[in-house]
Amino acid sequence: MAEKKSEKVAGKETQERMVKLGNELLAQLSQVKNPDIRLPIRALSNIYFDEKTKLIKLGNKVSHRTYLNVAHTRKFMQTLMVASECKKIIDQKVTISIRDLYYALKRTIPDTKENTFEDQGESDPVIEDLEVTLNTLREKLHLKADRKGYLAGPLTIKDMGDTIDARKMGSSGWAIPSNVEPENIQLTNQGAKYVLVIEKDAVWQRLNEDKFWKKNDCIIMTGKGQPDRGTRRLINRLHNEFKLPIYVLTDGDVWGYYIYSVIKQGSINLSFLSDRLGTPSAKFVGLTTRDVDKFGIPKNVTIKLNKGDIKRANDMLKYVWFKPKEWQAEIRHMLQVGYKLELEALSAKGIRFISEQYLPKKLASKDFLP
Amino acid sequence: MAEKKSEKVAGKETQERMVKLGNELLAQLSQVKNPDIRLPIRALSNIYFDEKTKLIKLGNKVSHRTYLNVAHTRKFMQTLMVASECKKIIDQKVTISIRDLYYALKRTIPDTKENTFEDQGESDPVIEDLEVTLNTLREKLHLKADRKGYLAGPLTIKDMGDTIDARKMGSSGWAIPSNVEPENIQLTNQGAKYVLVIEKDAVWQRLNEDKFWKKNDCIIMTGKGQPDRGTRRLINRLHNEFKLPIYVLTDGDVWGYYIYSVIKQGSINLSFLSDRLGTPSAKFVGLTTRDVDKFGIPKNVTIKLNKGDIKRANDMLKYVWFKPKEWQAEIRHMLQVGYKLELEALSAKGIRFISEQYLPKKLASKDFLP
Repeated sequence: MAEKKSEKVAGKETQERMVKLGNELLAQLSQVKNPDIRLPIRALSNIYFDEKTKLIKLGNKVSHRTYLNVAHTRKFMQTLMVASECKKIIDQKVTISIRDLYYALKRTIPDTKENTFEDQGESDPVIEDLEVTLNTLREKLHLKADRKGYLAGPLTIKDMGDTIDARKMGSSGWAIPSNVEPENIQLTNQGAKYVLVIEKDAVWQRLNEDKFWKKNDCIIMTGKGQPDRGTRRLINRLHNEFKLPIYVLTDGDVWGYYIYSVIKQGSINLSFLSDRLGTPSAKFVGLTTRDVDKFGIPKNVTIKLNKGDIKRANDMLKYVWFKPKEWQAEIRHMLQVGYKLELEALSAKGIRFISEQYLPKKLASKDFLP
Repeated sequence: MAEKKSEKVAGKETQERMVKLGNELLAQLSQVKNPDIRLPIRALSNIYFDEKTKLIKLGNKVSHRTYLNVAHTRKFMQTLMVASECKKIIDQKVTISIRDLYYALKRTIPDTKENTFEDQGESDPVIEDLEVTLNTLREKLHLKADRKGYLAGPLTIKDMGDTIDARKMGSSGWAIPSNVEPENIQLTNQGAKYVLVIEKDAVWQRLNEDKFWKKNDCIIMTGKGQPDRGTRRLINRLHNEFKLPIYVLTDGDVWGYYIYSVIKQGSINLSFLSDRLGTPSAKFVGLTTRDVDKFGIPKNVTIKLNKGDIKRANDMLKYVWFKPKEWQAEIRHMLQVGYKLELEALSAKGIRFISEQYLPKKLASKDFLP
């Protein structure tokens, strides 16, 4: 059983780091020192854009969580409780949701009125603390995040002993699980030449129905809006393992551009995972406000920018990762014409315009934004 | 190609009704009458609970949408535009999203400043009008709703020429498409004895990881909260085609009970589809507030009812479909103890308590609510 073996490896690696953390704390105790966990700071003050890797990265600033500090004691206890529960579920070879974890740990401390955790808002950040401290992924701690992505195209997947062929998944596609780490999910490229990541499921379904992936030897994916962690990690793996170019297709609005930027260089919130969740060589294939003239899209399917759009666009002009001149030109053009547009707007040119005209033309002429 | 042939049949049937509607309007015009579309009224005033079928049904009241009534003219035009576009996409053998439909029809009427549709809020209700007038489903009009359900277990599915085995879908399960009409999706039962519908995906994943469906010869499904139309229609089909009992597992709260009631007898909003989306023989397998004592669930994982919960629970006591004495007792008990609880609360008894203790015990003793 290949997956059983590899599961042990993953468990071993993360367990070793947890055992090391535990041993360090034990050593501190035996030396009658104040037990101390070092935590990298996850805040804007400790974030930078790494020009070399083109990823949003976490800096070197660390904080200390110590037991004999009244302000830290509760969090210190919670951190060790979460670590201990994660070790237990790795040993048991089960995966649970972050909500399960909260319920498994919530209890009243005997002879007190104090609860270990009051609500999930207390346990979720502790999970992220552990991820960053142990330099691991929540998936490797056997914890599950939400999932909502789909994929179709020439790719086979091994998962829990089953082999899934993403060319034979009908109208659904393969549902991307929350945990796509190599220990659990093994991928084989069956001839794909690139990956197209689509913001909207409805557009993904349009392309799947037209068998776009078959005609164009590509993999089509959607994360249904901002992709979940599993989908982002899968994009990262498809690029790194098979050297596949990643093209991203979103609405022509600030939210779409933000989705693209997160796929490409990671997010501030999960900056410590950028190298595993971000794919810096990703290219933006559309939609842009300049496509309106380029493709003769009727003006009446564009949408007037609202105040929030304008503020956000002005903010984006300042972000390091939107500094390339092509992005500056696009965002300025959006502000100048005062409109945005959704992918479905292409339907005004005919139902199959997107799969038969827009995408083939853009991809052939490499009409991308960086 | 089986699916091509059946697609023609589905198209034919709905098209015939649309052609009939068109011909009636033409006949009215040639007799110099005011063109008139009869629409069943979709409002609380025209809803009743059908004691015979145990479904929420639409009454007989109809309204008239006429062309020569200034208050109706715009909607009359929109209704015919939507019908015409649906006929076109059925002819073209493509399926589009309701958002695509809006964009395909939105335009400025020549020589005026009037738009055919201002926003999607104008086109969506017209789609429901057409569904009820033509006595059809939006899926048969080749329109797509959102999808979010998953399924695993002994069931094979034919879709777009592919055969999918829901026993071999790894950790993902089969993603339930928005359109599961028999013309598109053919099902074969491979030995399932019942269907378990689970409110939460995390719990579904727990049961899938434990291969609950294999050990118990059943199909496990989730709609991730309130199930989408595709998931509800599939529950209905699994019951009607294979006579499979349907058991529903939700949180022990008013929202969970509401989800169960919609699966069972349909919803007020889509009352005209109750016979295709509702499954009156469904049974409720949990969670209830009385499970807390029955299964020794620690009180500190229960959640205090808030004002909204209390109001909603009192409303539910009055609904015809919550009149059975078992439901009255449960809702009164919830109000009396003043708490609710989520499925994850069972994790407090151990990660596998739900799959190895709670469900086997409840199912074996037929400890259901009606």
